[in-house]
Amino acid sequence: MNISPYCRNIYYYETDRMDVVSHTNYIRWMEEARIDFMKKTGIPYHEIEKSGFMLPVLEVECKYKKSLTYGDSFCIYSKITEYNGFKMSIYYEIYNKETNELCAAAKSSHCFTDKNMKPLRITKKAPELHEAFIDAMNVTFSK
Amino acid sequence: MNISPYCRNIYYYETDRMDVVSHTNYIRWMEEARIDFMKKTGIPYHEIEKSGFMLPVLEVECKYKKSLTYGDSFCIYSKITEYNGFKMSIYYEIYNKETNELCAAAKSSHCFTDKNMKPLRITKKAPELHEAFIDAMNVTFSK
Amino acid sequence: MNISPYCRNIYYYETDRMDVVSHTNYIRWMEEARIDFMKKTGIPYHEIEKSGFMLPVLEVECKYKKSLTYGDSFCIYSKITEYNGFKMSIYYEIYNKETNELCAAAKSSHCFTDKNMKPLRITKKAPELHEAFIDAMNVTFSK
Amino acid sequence: MNISPYCRNIYYYETDRMDVVSHTNYIRWMEEARIDFMKKTGIPYHEIEKSGFMLPVLEVECKYKKSLTYGDSFCIYSKITEYNGFKMSIYYEIYNKETNELCAAAKSSHCFTDKNMKPLRITKKAPELHEAFIDAMNVTFSK
Repeated sequence: MNISPYCRNIYYYETDRMDVVSHTNYIRWMEEARIDFMKKTGIPYHEIEKSGFMLPVLEVECKYKKSLTYGDSFCIYSKITEYNGFKMSIYYEIYNKETNELCAAAKSSHCFTDKNMKPLRITKKAPELHEAFIDAMNVTFSK
Repeated sequence: MNISPYCRNIYYYETDRMDVVSHTNYIRWMEEARIDFMKKTGIPYHEIEKSGFMLPVLEVECKYKKSLTYGDSFCIYSKITEYNGFKMSIYYEIYNKETNELCAAAKSSHCFTDKNMKPLRITKKAPELHEAFIDAMNVTFSK
Repeated sequence: MNISPYCRNIYYYETDRMDVVSHTNYIRWMEEARIDFMKKTGIPYHEIEKSGFMLPVLEVECKYKKSLTYGDSFCIYSKITEYNGFKMSIYYEIYNKETNELCAAAKSSHCFTDKNMKPLRITKKAPELHEAFIDAMNVTFSK
Repeated sequence: MNISPYCRNIYYYETDRMDVVSHTNYIRWMEEARIDFMKKTGIPYHEIEKSGFMLPVLEVECKYKKSLTYGDSFCIYSKITEYNGFKMSIYYEIYNKETNELCAAAKSSHCFTDKNMKPLRITKKAPELHEAFIDAMNVTFSK
């Protein structure tokens, strides 16, 4: 499967007084990119929630390399680096859309749970969802 | 009843590249101040929610007079200006804590609803809550 | 001039525990829509800033009619309702993109200032900008 | 030196539709706690900025263990784990104030720069600031 990266303009309110995007917003962008990636690979997150599953965040990590500011746009390339029906890790590269420079590299880890946040394995509980995640591991990006 | 205003420092991430607090955050501060006011007047908002009621926002309004930035602190004085068991309006004055200048004047309107966002009158459904709101109208502030 | 409205998906982190978009985010959306509107009408806001002008917010107002939540998309139609080279007011209608229901109606007022937040009149200081704002008052929307 | 942890209530708008605090806000709390820690140890961050230095974030990391929601309060214990006049790392433990459970463990890395974001060593450029950071490494917490 071939999908497009997640791109958008930077909002004015996302900057801080250093005149760059507050580093705290990158974690929000990762969530936006993750949900966009899942939608494009055929696993819309609100369908997962409707089926009674959740995918809370266990861990995030972000390395900041180049700053971005208002007037810039970014593109995020997401990649599932680990998936076993129980846990999942995603790796993100955030680029300046105009200059194509790598601005940040990030990672998030997740587990599947039921509505009460109890961890579970989806392999047998949701075999179609499991297949969709397996397929999503082989996604490539068109520019 | 005599209560203290809601005061706190400004967070770095609340500023934007104009080097002042983003005007969008004042609406969040109003929510913080409203909840603090209700707690201090004996009507903690999460108790209201536990009782099955909600108090969604119907309308907000904010007039910006002086900017605030990182390094400043603010104090908010809240006042219930209308209450009839069905709807409620709150008026807020946001001051720079150091200079005592009025930085913004704001208003929010609310109605009472059940868990499904259906409007209701609490006068008889929750007479103690109703009394508490009546009392809260007479609150004064100690500095 | 005929432009498109400002539309986007709702982000997960924009919801709150009432399971709807926090009312505080609508004020941010107004900023996004305003900047998008100015870009589409040929007055990109970061160019205004580069020219040494700013357009701080004097007042905002928002009436909430229908809630939105994660999974929904919105479209915002912006309209300049007042402009005199010194002050400007914008009126916004926020629609649920799928159902086409009006979810909120809002207003913001602004004045032009220099870099030090001192108010000024752009009529003669920036005649081209002034013309662009006059033109922007006659913009219509294509769906 | 003996200081108090950074504690505060959770704001309503910090929750998301999972009915817990959005994981993205922990990164903001780290910034709040870091600035509070620096203030309490005699290195107020806005004084650092006034002296012409900045301390941008190179990297953040956060492991989520227990969720928090509206109605809860948290306390953050910050600790400088690395400092050499050029780079600094801080480790954070975020506790539920009532239950005393560890809710998250996090880390941020920073470097010192001038106003133009050019990295520099403060050892000789700002010897008093350097001493203050050395002292801050030995801070302990009173409950």
